[in-house]
Amino acid sequence: MRWNLTPEQIPTAWFNVLPRLTEPLPPPLHPGTREPVGPDDLAPLFPMALIGQEVSAEPWIDVPGPVLDVLRLWRPTPLVRARRLEEALGTPARIYYKDESVSPAGSHKPNTAVAQAFYNKEEGTRRLSTETGAGQWGSALSFACSLFDLECKVYMVRASYGQKPYRRVMIETWGGEVVPSPVDDPDHPGSLGTAISDAVRDAAGRDDTHYSLGSVLNHVLLHQTVIGLEAKEQLALAGEERPDVVIGSCGGGSNLGGLTLPFVPDEGVRLVAVEPTSCPTLTEGRFDYDFGDTAGMTPLLPMFTLGHDFIPPAIHAGGLRYHGDAPIISALVRGGRMEAVAYPQAKVFEAAVQFARTQGTIAAPETSHAIRAAIDEALAAKEEGAERVILFGYSGHGLLDLQAYDDHLHGRLVDA
Amino acid sequence: MRWNLTPEQIPTAWFNVLPRLTEPLPPPLHPGTREPVGPDDLAPLFPMALIGQEVSAEPWIDVPGPVLDVLRLWRPTPLVRARRLEEALGTPARIYYKDESVSPAGSHKPNTAVAQAFYNKEEGTRRLSTETGAGQWGSALSFACSLFDLECKVYMVRASYGQKPYRRVMIETWGGEVVPSPVDDPDHPGSLGTAISDAVRDAAGRDDTHYSLGSVLNHVLLHQTVIGLEAKEQLALAGEERPDVVIGSCGGGSNLGGLTLPFVPDEGVRLVAVEPTSCPTLTEGRFDYDFGDTAGMTPLLPMFTLGHDFIPPAIHAGGLRYHGDAPIISALVRGGRMEAVAYPQAKVFEAAVQFARTQGTIAAPETSHAIRAAIDEALAAKEEGAERVILFGYSGHGLLDLQAYDDHLHGRLVDA
Repeated sequence: MRWNLTPEQIPTAWFNVLPRLTEPLPPPLHPGTREPVGPDDLAPLFPMALIGQEVSAEPWIDVPGPVLDVLRLWRPTPLVRARRLEEALGTPARIYYKDESVSPAGSHKPNTAVAQAFYNKEEGTRRLSTETGAGQWGSALSFACSLFDLECKVYMVRASYGQKPYRRVMIETWGGEVVPSPVDDPDHPGSLGTAISDAVRDAAGRDDTHYSLGSVLNHVLLHQTVIGLEAKEQLALAGEERPDVVIGSCGGGSNLGGLTLPFVPDEGVRLVAVEPTSCPTLTEGRFDYDFGDTAGMTPLLPMFTLGHDFIPPAIHAGGLRYHGDAPIISALVRGGRMEAVAYPQAKVFEAAVQFARTQGTIAAPETSHAIRAAIDEALAAKEEGAERVILFGYSGHGLLDLQAYDDHLHGRLVDA
Repeated sequence: MRWNLTPEQIPTAWFNVLPRLTEPLPPPLHPGTREPVGPDDLAPLFPMALIGQEVSAEPWIDVPGPVLDVLRLWRPTPLVRARRLEEALGTPARIYYKDESVSPAGSHKPNTAVAQAFYNKEEGTRRLSTETGAGQWGSALSFACSLFDLECKVYMVRASYGQKPYRRVMIETWGGEVVPSPVDDPDHPGSLGTAISDAVRDAAGRDDTHYSLGSVLNHVLLHQTVIGLEAKEQLALAGEERPDVVIGSCGGGSNLGGLTLPFVPDEGVRLVAVEPTSCPTLTEGRFDYDFGDTAGMTPLLPMFTLGHDFIPPAIHAGGLRYHGDAPIISALVRGGRMEAVAYPQAKVFEAAVQFARTQGTIAAPETSHAIRAAIDEALAAKEEGAERVILFGYSGHGLLDLQAYDDHLHGRLVDA
């Protein structure tokens, strides 16, 4: 069963969690001076509109019309009740998922890519630079740039550039340019950290270019709140007063934040972050100021971190291989408003295959972490004989990750 | 702009074009005797319900409830107005497309796979065998079998099995078994014809197994009419009285038939089949009785054909590489109710890239043939200064065909 909203019912304002936090977020610090960064420090990299959103105290921020026009190419996205999965589990729980895989790039990433492209275009930026791991974010930004007539330069982690060519092709189909990172060492496999360094250096060195980040920052999570806002309305259509638990996979935190932040003020709603045991930022990291990149060029952010030089194993859920986490997510976990769990890969792919064989669709490895946690919540409800309303984020499809399924089905998956 | 119907608004009966044809279809002939085949000849391969649908004179045939339940996992599919493409073309035409890419298998194929799995399950079949080229049909049937608890054996054209592993992985993710065809010659690259022969031989040799075909036959096109029926309702919601032209790409004819057949009785609606110049069945083939497979095991069908031993060049639109065409489609073209056009590959991919850079989504190479024709219709309308309502079938996404885009973007496409 699916609940669709009409294109007219798309949320017209983003939900800003900042004024609703019990404690204000500590400010980002300048990497050199370790003083709080101001708008002027960020102006070489971001348009003023986004810098403003990064620290805004407004509870709601209007979505510009041209952004809505593009989002309506695929939004509102469906809310689906996973009845066949419920039946297979024999659970009294009702499992819902919010399907962000229907976007042109196949994930939630375009929600912020479109907004960032728009604000940059408005302020006269001609070109955007960014980093990408397996290519989800790079392809989303290239898509957004194609619609706002901006040039797009993507620095892609070299290991992925060679081994996973398909999202590179997507980036190029939408007109973006993509090169392997690090650019100055053809023997280095690269990491998100090196690619961020390359992209920031590019933007800092050119007047016509800004930098664009696909996760972690407050304005990115803000743009993603359309996910949770729509889900709330759709749950009401489905006759649910509120979910008991909202679950999202967490890499940098944008998918998780987009779904969960609108539920932060709601009493009795548990929020759960799911991460891989091989990159256990929230479950085993420390809370501290750390750099967003490997080279130490970004501001220092107050977050859970495994250390900016941490290189996680090459698991298939490339989007979850980040040493840090969004400051907003980190604050929610630290303050006890959000829980965090970690799963090893084999258990994640078992859940993904069970989902495919009941609900039909093949999920991204990142998304499958949330599926795993949702199934375990549903099984716990069965154990307790308790009804429970479970909502999880279906952040992307796995059609460009089929190698991972092949490895799992044929016993070649490294269970990191 | 999109028009969504609710899951309750899914069509509950299929549209049967057979009693609406101006002349009855010539019967299929037995490959040995050349006499018309009867139900008993087909019973080793198909369940009686499908054999009945193959020759039914009922104008409407009810969709069984359990089939509706599964179709509602993704149906009704969206009807989208391609406004950004219209703007880029500067055309007064209004271009709509019916998006079948949202199914779990990524194409229109599950519409009939689900029905076929259901009827087989009802009549006690335990296992289905089928052929697949690049894997669209095999993955759709494996998906459907997983939901009705049937075993699924897929014979995949050997060249695709080796070079395009991803749909093989999809088949396996849904629990199906897949082997390269021909099974008896590991050096032969295979073709749809050899794979049909393998699959028919498998089903004919086992009591617990039926055969399943993904296109060409009357009952397959019947099941696909949900596409056109929904599109009609959605066009009405969009305020359109009727389309001036309805366009679909044509391999065996199931996508094309599904979209166009409900429009056959409607005056003033042109119907257009689009095929590749490298496999020009409708535009350059002859109308004759011919086998559906290479080995000559299937009944002889009255259709346009390039000869059952025709091996088309290895173009990326694998779903359009078939020597014949559905008898229904052949009759409509022969009788003048439907037009046919053919395009070379380079012009098809130019259209696909223009579509991706305006509307966002990356289409299957098969689908891109319809996009090309729709763009040319819109440009003709511009030339004439005429309003025109264009509807085309967006039969599938191109996320497992990115190699084709890579070849096109880097000048490596063979322009067959």
